[in-house]
This record gives sequence, C-alpha cells and structure tokens, in this order.
Amino acid sequence: MKPELSIVKIGGNVIENTAELDIFLELFSALDSPKVLVHGGGKKATEMGQKLGISSKMVQGRRVTDSESLDVALMVYAGLVNKKIVGTLQAKQCNALGLSGADANLIQAYKRPVKEVDFGLVGDISAVNGETLKHFLDLDLVPVFCALTHNQMGQMLNTNADTIASELAVSLSLSYSVTLYYCFEKQGVLLDKDDEQSVIQNINWQLYQELISNKTISDGMLPKMENSFRALRSEVDRVCIGNVSMLRSGPGIYTTLTL
Amino acid sequence: MKPELSIVKIGGNVIENTAELDIFLELFSALDSPKVLVHGGGKKATEMGQKLGISSKMVQGRRVTDSESLDVALMVYAGLVNKKIVGTLQAKQCNALGLSGADANLIQAYKRPVKEVDFGLVGDISAVNGETLKHFLDLDLVPVFCALTHNQMGQMLNTNADTIASELAVSLSLSYSVTLYYCFEKQGVLLDKDDEQSVIQNINWQLYQELISNKTISDGMLPKMENSFRALRSEVDRVCIGNVSMLRSGPGIYTTLTL
Repeated sequence: MKPELSIVKIGGNVIENTAELDIFLELFSALDSPKVLVHGGGKKATEMGQKLGISSKMVQGRRVTDSESLDVALMVYAGLVNKKIVGTLQAKQCNALGLSGADANLIQAYKRPVKEVDFGLVGDISAVNGETLKHFLDLDLVPVFCALTHNQMGQMLNTNADTIASELAVSLSLSYSVTLYYCFEKQGVLLDKDDEQSVIQNINWQLYQELISNKTISDGMLPKMENSFRALRSEVDRVCIGNVSMLRSGPGIYTTLTL
Repeated sequence: MKPELSIVKIGGNVIENTAELDIFLELFSALDSPKVLVHGGGKKATEMGQKLGISSKMVQGRRVTDSESLDVALMVYAGLVNKKIVGTLQAKQCNALGLSGADANLIQAYKRPVKEVDFGLVGDISAVNGETLKHFLDLDLVPVFCALTHNQMGQMLNTNADTIASELAVSLSLSYSVTLYYCFEKQGVLLDKDDEQSVIQNINWQLYQELISNKTISDGMLPKMENSFRALRSEVDRVCIGNVSMLRSGPGIYTTLTL
C-alpha cells in the first residue's frame, strides 16, 4: 500500500492576512508527514508592482506577465512570501524547503503559445521531476512551492498555483496515496454563492456537469475544478476544496470531489 | 581519501553585470561536481530599497537591517537574484537548488548581540546542517545560497555572504576535501592596491600578520582574510582569492592562502 501524502494549496487571501496565515501554518505543521505546500502570491505582487511603478496588464481576466512583472513575481513569490513561510514553518518544527520549479529542475514548463492573447512569461507545465521530490520527502523535508517554473533554457515563468498543485499531485500519485487540498476563502463549493451554509459536500463528475450546465459553477471556480478532475482521473485519491479549517482533524464541512 | 568539493563565493560586482555573471556561471558550471555557490546581493538591494523609499542605514560601514530592509533583502537576494542564477545554471545543465539558511534548516543563526551598535536583523551563524547538504550533493544537486539565515524561531536574518561561504566550507570539510574560492573584482590580494599586477600569489599566516602590520591588508579585505584563515584552521584544504577567471582550468594568477 502506498504511503499517504497531503498536498495543500493556499491562495492569496490566506497569504495577505498575517493572522490567518499563522493559523493555516499551525494546522499545516500538525498534518502528518509527508506533505507539500503550494502558495500563490495574491495581491502582494500587484501592490509591489504599483509601488515600483510597474502596472500589471490584464487580458481576459488573466495577468499578462512582461519582464518587469516577472521580476516582481520572483521577488514577491520566491523571495518575500516563500521565505517568510519557510522561516515560520521552521519555528513550528516543520522542516520546510522553499522551492520554485527551477530548483533541482523540479517543474519544467514552456511559454504558453500565443493564440488570441500573448500572456507573456507564463508557463504551462510539461513535466514534474517526482523522483527528486520523493528524495526530499524521504529526507523528511516539506517542499514549499511558489508559483514559478522554468523552461530549462534560463527563463523563469509565472505559473498558476492551482495547476502546480494538481500536477505535483498527479506526479506523486505514482508513489503516494495523495490527497489534494485547495484552500480558499469559502467553506467549499456553494450551491448558492450568496449562502455560505450551502456547501455541496460531495461532487462527482456527473454532478459537476450538471453544476456547470445550471451555472452554479462558473468563472474562477472552473479552472480549479478542471484541475481537480484531471488529477482524480490521473490516480490522485481525493481532492478537497474548502477554507483552512478543513485541515483540522475530525469531521468538518468542505467539498470532496470524486470521479 | 575525501572527494573534492568546490565552494565559490561571488560578490556584488559580478552579480550587477549581466555579461560578467554569465561568464562566471559558465565557468562555475564547468567545474567538476560536487560544488556549492554562495552569492551576495550587492547594490541591487540598496537600489530596490531606494525605489521603494526605504533608505539603508549604515553604522561603522555595516548596513543596519530593520524589518523593511530585511523584506527588501528577502525579495532581492532570495527571490530575484537567487532564482535568476538557478534558472541560468539549469540552462547550462547544472542542477542548481536555490537555498536560504532557513530552507531545510541548513544554516542556523542568532541575532547579533547589541554592543555599541544594534545591527538589527543581522545573523551570526551558530550551526550548519552539513548532513542535509551532503544528501543534496549526493543527489548531484548544486546548492546555491543567498546571504540569509534564520534563528529557528521564525525570524530570517541578513548574514554576511563571505562568512556563510567559510562556515559551509568548515562544515563540509568533515566529508570533503574543500577548496573555498572568494571571487571579487581584483585578480587577488595586491601588494600595491594601485597596481593590478602586484598579486601576492601565496599568503601564509606569518605573511598575513606582516601584511596587516604594514597596512597592505586593511578595511574590507580583513574580514575575508579572517574567514579564510579560520576555515584553514578548521580543516578546509585551500582558500583562493581572485577574480572569476581563477575558475578556469590551468594555471592562473590569484592568491592562495595557506596556514
């Protein structure tokens, strides 16, 4: 039987709030090893860009990454946010190792092909080096990924953190029984977006199709769900979507996805 | 017999010049493994601080690090500079792994005690986790350190890159025959600071004392020399000081220190 592994993705809302981040890191530290953390950068990069006079261009709701914006992402995601998380986890006796996809060639990507939009220095993942990651996990290290990859030709690339989490989950499911946790600001996928109590506790593929048809799931939630079902089809055991309290032991309210 | 290991420290002058950095990274990649890189951040952090309206305080020629300056160091050293180096090395088939001292708890430090000056968030090293580093080297990874450590209580600390290099050298000399290279802008330690041709090719402890007495060695060079002799007294095989061309194979002009 494969050993258990948790992969937890946290988004901008958790990172922007120091108190909430500390609660999260406490819960994350308490999870049984082995585990992996993937973090976004949220508004901090946008704020830093503004301070430096670099405006972030948006096309079709996606940030377009030029060379200056990538430098800001490198500073905020790989530097400020990643190292503060690593330092805090170390204080909680969690032996964190901060990583980008370029480190140890862990996540290889290619610049997203230009179709209607040129997203700039944005990477789509081509391969995850699960073998090296497993070596790190065998050393009882806790990989902490920021949302940056590389193209193996010297170019760092901005990459969606949800996708990094699901691709890591798929790769590591060869060696581990993986649970993938997507933490966000809500308690789970809601039947009525204005009612926080309306968490749908289980969503399978058939229900997912219905929820898309009747527009219960739309916009920002769609890529997360697509990533989740792709992971489940690729041997990932379980995907859970909810707020950070779903990491507490014992029963809780959040959404679990199954095929 | 212990296997050979090279530890190379580069300073601000190399990092600030893209063309020179690329020449250096090419030479570094060509060195036989195993090897370790330690980089400073140079003026980039000062420049970034200025852009963000954070002025850097200097006391007795040393930068005083307040919380805002530390954030800039995290962004520039651990983010921008470290990941660009890692990405570039990966393109040269050198399997770089970017690290701060907090990652994998590799370099533990304590805030420098306040005597005449409170240096702020500056760390003096208490321990290096050579065992984990050796695991990384055994995986054919090339550790690339920025000049940041942590106090194991959640505080990142700005730390002198020369000292990081010599402490890594001392720790790894238990398992390796270590050569420590300090790369800087000159060809070596000069007998006449205005004559680039006056490189002293060998300096032993006795000559070092004489060079201090007659003020040939002073100011910025002193801590580097102190670190070097401390390393040599702690089983490090060889310390070389010069510009990046000393990494070329074959004979070259630079300074070698011995006891």
